[in-house]
Amino acid sequence: MTDLIQLGREALAKQPFSVLLQAELVSYTEGRSELKIPITEQVKQQHGFVHGGVVSYLADNALTYAGAWVLGWAVVTAEFKINYIRPAIGTALIARASALHAGKTQAVCRCDVFAISAEGERLCAAAQGTIARLSRPGD
Amino acid sequence: MTDLIQLGREALAKQPFSVLLQAELVSYTEGRSELKIPITEQVKQQHGFVHGGVVSYLADNALTYAGAWVLGWAVVTAEFKINYIRPAIGTALIARASALHAGKTQAVCRCDVFAISAEGERLCAAAQGTIARLSRPGD
Amino acid sequence: MTDLIQLGREALAKQPFSVLLQAELVSYTEGRSELKIPITEQVKQQHGFVHGGVVSYLADNALTYAGAWVLGWAVVTAEFKINYIRPAIGTALIARASALHAGKTQAVCRCDVFAISAEGERLCAAAQGTIARLSRPGD
Amino acid sequence: MTDLIQLGREALAKQPFSVLLQAELVSYTEGRSELKIPITEQVKQQHGFVHGGVVSYLADNALTYAGAWVLGWAVVTAEFKINYIRPAIGTALIARASALHAGKTQAVCRCDVFAISAEGERLCAAAQGTIARLSRPGD
Repeated sequence: MTDLIQLGREALAKQPFSVLLQAELVSYTEGRSELKIPITEQVKQQHGFVHGGVVSYLADNALTYAGAWVLGWAVVTAEFKINYIRPAIGTALIARASALHAGKTQAVCRCDVFAISAEGERLCAAAQGTIARLSRPGD
Repeated sequence: MTDLIQLGREALAKQPFSVLLQAELVSYTEGRSELKIPITEQVKQQHGFVHGGVVSYLADNALTYAGAWVLGWAVVTAEFKINYIRPAIGTALIARASALHAGKTQAVCRCDVFAISAEGERLCAAAQGTIARLSRPGD
Repeated sequence: MTDLIQLGREALAKQPFSVLLQAELVSYTEGRSELKIPITEQVKQQHGFVHGGVVSYLADNALTYAGAWVLGWAVVTAEFKINYIRPAIGTALIARASALHAGKTQAVCRCDVFAISAEGERLCAAAQGTIARLSRPGD
Repeated sequence: MTDLIQLGREALAKQPFSVLLQAELVSYTEGRSELKIPITEQVKQQHGFVHGGVVSYLADNALTYAGAWVLGWAVVTAEFKINYIRPAIGTALIARASALHAGKTQAVCRCDVFAISAEGERLCAAAQGTIARLSRPGD
């Protein structure tokens, strides 16, 4: 699976927004993805927590990677929902997504987002969504 | 309502992530919010479209503002779902949210996100979510 | 559009569960559907309100009809989310759905569910979801 | 935990709609619920599959039970989303829900719905939602 994580990291490096947030594809195997960003000042909101929009970015992107693993490139997130569970505080945010099911054109995936701090990992958000295979010319 | 839009803009200016994305609270009246960001290179993904995570950030934040209008400060987005409808291409992204209903502690809000280009506005995403009033000490 | 509402009613009459709930396709035009059920004893939960599962059935079905209008038969609801807003009390429940956007294979639709009583209509729930065109052999 | 499953079954027996669908609370422990219904003619749609509205009823109800376990009575489903994964065919439908997190007033829960047939269990749908504690007079 070295190839897939390599391809995944190259895709991430081509996303200016993911580069801006210093996103890193930590692991990528068997329909599972782990995506991580450091918690810097710039991703926060007014109370010092990570902005919800950043948490949803990470969940969205991890869902897409999980779906891409089972559907093959190229895919997009068609839709997702996210429940925010706790304020995200700490040094890094990690999203772990996995594919529940893959059909011919779509996959249903779930994702948990954790905040990492000195006390360990704490669940911050839970997401679920649909990843869709982009149709090719001729489809 | 001058006061509320002023308060809203001050809150936005205190969110480092919203400042990073140059978010602007365009209008804010009667349970409705309009939030806008310019489409710069840094908010894109590898195909040149706005990253889905940026679209979801804008929807999330606009939902929060709509909910804050009807619930009063301070509020958080408890959960939301988003359907991506079209690739977001153009010069700016605008999210328009409104509150469908406000209870004592929660409001249900909807949001449409449009991409603005030379050809006008095109719907890019549709969201719906729950905004929750933060409980105060003693509640 | 007489034909489409007629086709829609025939489809409904072939769904044993919709027959059980006495569902009626009230109107069906331009990507909009209105689906209604009487509030009988059998659709209630323990507090005398309509069971949430019945409200979600009605939203789901109305979303499917709205999607079918813009996509053509045959379609299925791929996913949806629903926010319950108020307890559903009264004599009937009506769901009004409309298509926000239709692509080649999918439509994004929204739906509001109202309870009808002597005092008029009250919003009970709001839904949003994806309707998918079933692929035909050879697609 | 005999008491909780007993209370849960009594609550179910007081829901006319759950009685109509012959819903049974199979197990109920540690923030987890299992709810089952037989697949009879009356729960089907026109193609002979279980109607999506019935699948969403079962998911909604199982989510509520999982939330009630961690929050205590009385609770309601505030919102949920469901992804339909496969047509539901077989002899029975079983929903397994669990609480991911419980706060003071809300719990976030997930649910998988399986169709049971001679070939075993197959995942039909996946749901995620918020269960809210009803406020008491004086809260």
